Amino acid sequence: MITVVKIGGNIINDEAALARFLDAFAQLEGPKILVHGGGRLATQLAAQLGIETTMIDGRRVTDEPTLNVVTMVYAGLTNKRIVAQLDARRCASIGLSGADASVITATRRPAIPIDFGFVGDIDAERVDTTFIQSLLDRQITPVFCSIMHNGAGQLLNCNADSVASAVAMALSATDSVRLIYCFEKQGVLRDVNDEQSVIAHISRDDFRSLKEQGIINSGMLPKIENAFKAIDNGVSSVVIKHADHLLDNIGTTLSNQ
Amino acid sequence: MITVVKIGGNIINDEAALARFLDAFAQLEGPKILVHGGGRLATQLAAQLGIETTMIDGRRVTDEPTLNVVTMVYAGLTNKRIVAQLDARRCASIGLSGADASVITATRRPAIPIDFGFVGDIDAERVDTTFIQSLLDRQITPVFCSIMHNGAGQLLNCNADSVASAVAMALSATDSVRLIYCFEKQGVLRDVNDEQSVIAHISRDDFRSLKEQGIINSGMLPKIENAFKAIDNGVSSVVIKHADHLLDNIGTTLSNQ
Repeated sequence: MITVVKIGGNIINDEAALARFLDAFAQLEGPKILVHGGGRLATQLAAQLGIETTMIDGRRVTDEPTLNVVTMVYAGLTNKRIVAQLDARRCASIGLSGADASVITATRRPAIPIDFGFVGDIDAERVDTTFIQSLLDRQITPVFCSIMHNGAGQLLNCNADSVASAVAMALSATDSVRLIYCFEKQGVLRDVNDEQSVIAHISRDDFRSLKEQGIINSGMLPKIENAFKAIDNGVSSVVIKHADHLLDNIGTTLSNQ
Repeated sequence: MITVVKIGGNIINDEAALARFLDAFAQLEGPKILVHGGGRLATQLAAQLGIETTMIDGRRVTDEPTLNVVTMVYAGLTNKRIVAQLDARRCASIGLSGADASVITATRRPAIPIDFGFVGDIDAERVDTTFIQSLLDRQITPVFCSIMHNGAGQLLNCNADSVASAVAMALSATDSVRLIYCFEKQGVLRDVNDEQSVIAHISRDDFRSLKEQGIINSGMLPKIENAFKAIDNGVSSVVIKHADHLLDNIGTTLSNQ
C-alpha cells in the first residue's frame, strides 16, 4: 500500500504545525509520497516585489513575474526546507517539480473563459510512475511541489490537490494506493464554525445531498470532486483530515458507497 | 567516461548564452552532470527585498534572509528553468540540491576568522555516488545547484565550483571522470584583457610560476586550486573554457605534468 499525502498551505505557513506534521509523516510506515501546497509566502513575496496578486475562484492568476515568484517559493524555499527537515528525521526524501525527470507534465489552461496565465492542468494519464516507483524502491520519499512543465520548456503553476490525486491515480494502476488530504481543519465539517461537526463518512450520494443543502462550501467542493475522481480511477481510499491527526483514525473518509 | 560540467553565473545571467550552452550540453554524449552557479538574480532579488548583500573574498555572506533568497533563486527558479529547458531538448534531467536524497552534505564553515553565516563546505568524502549513478543508469542527467544541507535540517549555501569538483572526485572512485568549467571567457588568459591570450595547458609547475608572476588573478585562483585538487583525487582531466565551446577542443587544460 502506497500512501500519498497532500499537506495544505495553511500548515506550511505555521512552522510549529509543519514540524509536528513532518514528525508524523516521517513515522508513517510503508512507501509514501508528499505533495505540498503553497502557503502565503508567495503572496507576501509578490507584494514585497510590487507584483499584484489576483485570485479568481481561489486560483492564482499567474503572469510571468508571478510564475517566477511561485517557482522560487514552492520549488525552491518550501520544497527544499521540507526535504532537509525530512532528511533530518531519517526520512530520505527528494524534492521534485513536474519538470524533474519530466515526471509530470501539464497543459496550459485555455485562456477562455478565464485567462489564468501560466496555469496548467495535469496530464494525469502521463505521470511517469516508473520513475516514482524507482525512488520508492530505494526507500526515497518523493516530495512534490505544484510547479509542473509542458515538456517544451515552459513551467506551469498547477493545483497541489490535483497533483496529489494524479499521482495517486497513476500509481493505482499497479499498486494499492491511499490518498490523504491534510489541512488545518478536522475534516469535512457539517458546520464550518464547529470543529466537532466532522462528517466521518461521505458517500457519493451523501456528497450530492450535502452539495444541494449548501453544507459543503466552495473551497471544499473541488477537493471532494478530486477525491471522488481518484476513487473512480482506482485509488483505494481518500481521507480528508487535520494535519495533526495524520497517524490517527480521525477525519472524513470518502467512498463510492 | 562521465562528464561533469560547471556553468558559471555570468552565463546564467544571459538568456541567449544559456540557451546556446544548453543546446550544446544536451548534445554532449555519454553520462553527464551539470552544476550551475548563481548569477546576479539573487543579488537583484535581495536588493528588491531590502536585504543588503555583503561579499567577502568573492563569497556571499549568508544570513538567514539571504539564505532564503539564494534557496529560492538557485534551487527554485534557476534550477527548474534549466531542467525544463533540458527536458525540452530531449535531455532528461533532474534538479537537485544536496538535501535531495541527501546526496551531498556540507558542514557549516566556522565563524572564525570570518563569519559567513549559513555557508557550508562540501563533505566531499560523503557524496552519495550510488544515488547519482542510479540516475545516470536511467539516462537522467542530474542538475545540481549549490544549496546543500548539513543532514540535520539546515540548508547551507556552498560554492558551485566545489560542488562540481566534489561530485567529479567522488565518481572517479569507480568511473573515469572529466571535469569542465564553463564560463564567459575563452579559458585561463595570460592577459585578462585579451581573449586571444588563452593558455592552452597548465601543469602544476606552470601554475606555481603563473601565480608567482601574478598572471593568474584572485578570481581564477580558487578555480584552479579546485581543479588540481580534483586531479589529485582521481579526476582524469580538467578543462576551463568558454560556455560556447563546450563541444570544441578549445580552452585551458590542467594536468599534473
